[in-house]
Amino acid sequence: MKKLINHPEDVLNEFMRGFSIAHKDLVEYKTDPVHFHRAGGAVQGKVGLISGGGSGHEPLGGGYVGRGMLDAAAPGAFFSSPTPDQILAATQAADGGAGVLHLVLNYTGDILNFEMAAEMAEAEGIEVTSVVIDDDVAVEDSTWTAGRRGVAGAITAMKMTGAATDLGYDLARTTEVCKKINDSMGTMGLALSACTVPTAGKPSFDLADDEIELGIGVHGEPGVKRVKIMPADDITDVLVDAVVKDLKLERGEDVLLFINGLGATPLSEQYILYNHAWDKLDALGVNVTRSQVGNYFTSLEMAGASITIMRLDEELTTLFDAPVHTAGWRAGA
Amino acid sequence: MKKLINHPEDVLNEFMRGFSIAHKDLVEYKTDPVHFHRAGGAVQGKVGLISGGGSGHEPLGGGYVGRGMLDAAAPGAFFSSPTPDQILAATQAADGGAGVLHLVLNYTGDILNFEMAAEMAEAEGIEVTSVVIDDDVAVEDSTWTAGRRGVAGAITAMKMTGAATDLGYDLARTTEVCKKINDSMGTMGLALSACTVPTAGKPSFDLADDEIELGIGVHGEPGVKRVKIMPADDITDVLVDAVVKDLKLERGEDVLLFINGLGATPLSEQYILYNHAWDKLDALGVNVTRSQVGNYFTSLEMAGASITIMRLDEELTTLFDAPVHTAGWRAGA
Repeated sequence: MKKLINHPEDVLNEFMRGFSIAHKDLVEYKTDPVHFHRAGGAVQGKVGLISGGGSGHEPLGGGYVGRGMLDAAAPGAFFSSPTPDQILAATQAADGGAGVLHLVLNYTGDILNFEMAAEMAEAEGIEVTSVVIDDDVAVEDSTWTAGRRGVAGAITAMKMTGAATDLGYDLARTTEVCKKINDSMGTMGLALSACTVPTAGKPSFDLADDEIELGIGVHGEPGVKRVKIMPADDITDVLVDAVVKDLKLERGEDVLLFINGLGATPLSEQYILYNHAWDKLDALGVNVTRSQVGNYFTSLEMAGASITIMRLDEELTTLFDAPVHTAGWRAGA
Repeated sequence: MKKLINHPEDVLNEFMRGFSIAHKDLVEYKTDPVHFHRAGGAVQGKVGLISGGGSGHEPLGGGYVGRGMLDAAAPGAFFSSPTPDQILAATQAADGGAGVLHLVLNYTGDILNFEMAAEMAEAEGIEVTSVVIDDDVAVEDSTWTAGRRGVAGAITAMKMTGAATDLGYDLARTTEVCKKINDSMGTMGLALSACTVPTAGKPSFDLADDEIELGIGVHGEPGVKRVKIMPADDITDVLVDAVVKDLKLERGEDVLLFINGLGATPLSEQYILYNHAWDKLDALGVNVTRSQVGNYFTSLEMAGASITIMRLDEELTTLFDAPVHTAGWRAGA
């Protein structure tokens, strides 16, 4: 294992401490239990928004905490759910008296721990609602989930739902729009290589030199099929077709086109996917009115990418365009 | 070669077209000759700022064109200088009647081609000045340069110099502050693995499974030495010591600490370098008052990173903090 680390078991602590010093204008980092919250704490009277999940999906952790996005986040160990006490602490930190929404990616461990934390928070008098993000159209049920997995679209959902809380939506309306965002999008991805979790010390799966896996999960869970490497346009066809079919997109609709890099895939390759996906949607009469390209939800240094398409209306476009200030959401997005 | 591409010779065209569609609110892409300029064209009465260099150092190309940074950019082929006619076209596109500054990274081919383009622009009545960025403290002269190489610090120089043009600095003062920025910083990096240029089809150099190269150039040019992989803190010590010595940093000074990822190195590892570099500078009595961490200047999917330290005064801090809106500079920086 060749990595810029000290001891494998110190990676997350050192990463999070470094992150919190570099971005102390945006976040505060707490270690007992581990969570991040916005610098300055909860905004009184605003609905709080939190999320959480396994580390390794960078820049999650502290990267999306800040104005216009998350109020707090609970990062678990690598590819492991945060514990209920972490989620409870994030909930408390996000509570400005108007309730807190849990934005949960659909993995069985996460679902259970967020539910426990929600019960604990309710017992303390914090009103909690929950929305489960399950944007991955590749597989129904998987080794890690009942139903579809939550993947890159969750980041866009965090950004847009955070915007709703900033615009003064109450808890019921925030919850409703977050569900609408989830229902409006679909994602499918592929991997060219595995990543190595420092505490595991070896690649999470094996792929032959000429092989890729379509529909793979962000932890290396099995996808739809392994195939020989194909031209990027052919791969893009498979992914876009699957999402368009799932969303039942029709001529004349407006969409967000989001290409997410899994870590080691250069931006040039991500924009090559974008380029052909745009042409395909254009040929279908679908208008790409908003775009997002980059490493928004990685699996460490995995090579690969996913394509997310989200149906947009005026409300969702406004939420996408709203101001945001976090370490991880790009200015130019 | 396992990449998300179609034909190797089409990679740059498809990348740049995709980029220009995704970010059409920020940039315009011209193909004859290839260059990017700000959407809407030059700002009348403002000094123009351009840069350019070989492709593969992402998100360079169009990624730093926009308000508060570059007015235009001329991307060459992978790891190759742009041609004089590309640079001339970028100069013309950036010309708002107040002169144009060429921000040039110190590589022999780039220097020659920017000089030729400057002469051509002057012949057309555009006043041009030039600043050569040579922040890499690792080696004096190299296979690609006379003198020191220009590396990641060039991106910070583009951002800060662009801010100066926005604040109304004239050409002489813009040129002077860009030189001051260059004189105020030093960078040193390392690589854990090579990258593969699509048109070459094979890795640019070989490194053993347990080997890293300190002081390596961003095209794989030889560095200071190859050593066995070390703990991240020991690597950070080597890099920070070299830059601190070069800058003759003293107790009580304020600095920017910038960790740049070369492509495949996860953010968690970059923040581990940041974490220890911050502690080292703190122990020296040097105050890290500004921070920048991420893939600002990659070598495609190379694994590795560099550390840049810049001495800050009030003027430079103001330029770093000024508004910026490009696809590549992060909101949270």
